[in-house]
Amino acid sequence: MENAFSDRITDVPKSFIREILKVTNDTSIISFAGGLPNRLFFPVKPLQKASFDVFEEEGSDILQYANSEGYLGLRQYISDRYRKQEGLDISVNDILITTGSQQGLDLLGKTFLNEGDDLIIEEPGYLGAIQAFAMYRPRFHPVPVSEGGMDLVALGKVLRERRPKLLYTVTNFQNPSGISYSDDNRRAVAEMVRNSSCLIIQDDPYGDLRFSGTRKVSFKHLLPDNTVLLGSFSKTVAPALRLGWLVAPPALMDKLIIAKQAADLHTNSLAQRILYRYLCDNDLDAHIATIIHQYGLQKAAMIAAIQQYFPADVQYTNPEGGMFLWVSLPAGMSSMALFEAAIKKKVAFVPGTPFYVDRKDSNTLRLNFSCSDEATIAQGIKRLGDSIRELF
Amino acid sequence: MENAFSDRITDVPKSFIREILKVTNDTSIISFAGGLPNRLFFPVKPLQKASFDVFEEEGSDILQYANSEGYLGLRQYISDRYRKQEGLDISVNDILITTGSQQGLDLLGKTFLNEGDDLIIEEPGYLGAIQAFAMYRPRFHPVPVSEGGMDLVALGKVLRERRPKLLYTVTNFQNPSGISYSDDNRRAVAEMVRNSSCLIIQDDPYGDLRFSGTRKVSFKHLLPDNTVLLGSFSKTVAPALRLGWLVAPPALMDKLIIAKQAADLHTNSLAQRILYRYLCDNDLDAHIATIIHQYGLQKAAMIAAIQQYFPADVQYTNPEGGMFLWVSLPAGMSSMALFEAAIKKKVAFVPGTPFYVDRKDSNTLRLNFSCSDEATIAQGIKRLGDSIRELF
Repeated sequence: MENAFSDRITDVPKSFIREILKVTNDTSIISFAGGLPNRLFFPVKPLQKASFDVFEEEGSDILQYANSEGYLGLRQYISDRYRKQEGLDISVNDILITTGSQQGLDLLGKTFLNEGDDLIIEEPGYLGAIQAFAMYRPRFHPVPVSEGGMDLVALGKVLRERRPKLLYTVTNFQNPSGISYSDDNRRAVAEMVRNSSCLIIQDDPYGDLRFSGTRKVSFKHLLPDNTVLLGSFSKTVAPALRLGWLVAPPALMDKLIIAKQAADLHTNSLAQRILYRYLCDNDLDAHIATIIHQYGLQKAAMIAAIQQYFPADVQYTNPEGGMFLWVSLPAGMSSMALFEAAIKKKVAFVPGTPFYVDRKDSNTLRLNFSCSDEATIAQGIKRLGDSIRELF
Repeated sequence: MENAFSDRITDVPKSFIREILKVTNDTSIISFAGGLPNRLFFPVKPLQKASFDVFEEEGSDILQYANSEGYLGLRQYISDRYRKQEGLDISVNDILITTGSQQGLDLLGKTFLNEGDDLIIEEPGYLGAIQAFAMYRPRFHPVPVSEGGMDLVALGKVLRERRPKLLYTVTNFQNPSGISYSDDNRRAVAEMVRNSSCLIIQDDPYGDLRFSGTRKVSFKHLLPDNTVLLGSFSKTVAPALRLGWLVAPPALMDKLIIAKQAADLHTNSLAQRILYRYLCDNDLDAHIATIIHQYGLQKAAMIAAIQQYFPADVQYTNPEGGMFLWVSLPAGMSSMALFEAAIKKKVAFVPGTPFYVDRKDSNTLRLNFSCSDEATIAQGIKRLGDSIRELF
């Protein structure tokens, strides 16, 4: 049967993280491997009430086929929030509701990428984006990112030598590294891209989860006609709703809607109605404030434990928000080897490998701090520190 | 910006039906153009209760990220139902929950089709399938279907001259034509496909909506290793849940799950939990019985009105279930011209055009009978009959 498959699907390996998470099903293991928001903060009762109320008041209206663009009320809420939070003027017509922002990636790949097209991706970069785009078989051009943003020299080289169609970025508290682009770096990237035909995809699932520092400028301010925004309610309300969105100029939106119709006709409209009702009846910002207060404490606990238990030549990022930080072991050490050693000491993480397009073994790893309390974090980091010293 | 798009997206025209439905927003128009289940039968109160109960009893469990395969309880329900309804033994491991069965089509295209691969589709065929597969740029080979099933001579010719990867069929109460394949036709098709490398996709959104006649054999009985099944709760419970499924042998399922992860990580798990709870606490078959009783009456009313008001040389199918029937005007007449005339008389339908891969104008049209009561159907068919006579 093997030769029955498409070339695209035989190229894409099974999710590395999925395989790793199987190892960490053992509950005696402290896991920093996951990528989940903390379930303690899911608004169960308010969503239950919102759900009851929409059935009560809107009846069969909420159960019929709906339009491909998404529920107008929810799109209006998103538009209003962009204005309030970022001073961005986004028309509801430029907003498409998607089945999580992951679907936004798939629709963008489907709409823009021919096989062999050039695409710029961060290194390390978001695994889900690599997987979604890989389905359309582009030529990936990884550009390094570190504290402060994108490597401008490497970016300039790709822009000069290729004609990249897409540049994929997670500018705030990036997955996997936790780094954010500075305002200066964003402006420099925008200037370099300005006169090219490259479209910037700014994926921002974590932007609201800022526990220190100040909000940075959006590419939508800097390059409004060449920027697509992706957003998500998965980290601020709940992932199971599978509700994200995509912002694109009208010329692109027409084609994206065709891709959306072909993909699943429209996003779950019951979930859209429930979420919209929840957002109308509750204060999202107050809810987010409770999440980031706790995530901030957990990140601080992780940094403190790293400083206490890791050898001094291990480097790490110190994010201002989000759910992850990134550790670089001394050059030459393998995080895959560390993973094996750490599992024996009952602590897990994700080695850097799947976040590189070429899936190379590396000295880097991702730690999640959103799902463990501060005491557990201290204990897990101590175990990990012991594992590192053992491997030296 | 035009040259920025992928070839696949510039090939696919905007949904014809979407454009037609805009014309029919006028509420004085009697519309047989839609493809919607009748909202009168959506189980609003039972779903409200199911929703309340899952929040009450399972709390944050139902709001976290979930697995790509779908909720095990729901997959078990589907497996049990296949055994009970069709005598099919389907492992839960062979069932993938999808965002409506439309997504199943997209995942199959993504997993199997390289550009230029040969694909057999019914003529007339389901528009959503044409759109989904067109994204992967196969070579379409339309094979005519009529009362009784697929044209075996035309099928044999494609199987001899090409190496089709996929054969897409809606064997029960097909959209758009309402026809069903006879048992003999299914057996003959299976025998012809048996020694090829072609995979049969049996899409069955309407199979449960049978108001007369008897259930026919599944391709899964006839060619178990070469058949993929698609199913949906959209026509039996509610479309807004966006819950469908795909049944595939293990060798295929591994790849389909990779495609699913890249597409949207997993299907809305809140909706899966609500639906599962609804299915546990209610009698789906009793619910379906009320739907098909009414749809049967409405179809009978449409047939009676056609016999009374249409010229005798207009042909029509007489479905045993589903939501549509298919009308063939005398040769040479244009259903696009009829559409213009009919709108003036305040009645709408979908001309056959979008159901042909080459989008040719034709003498055929689709009539929906699920959404109008019997009196409205009689009045609308009279108007349509007048329009036909006028055009003669």
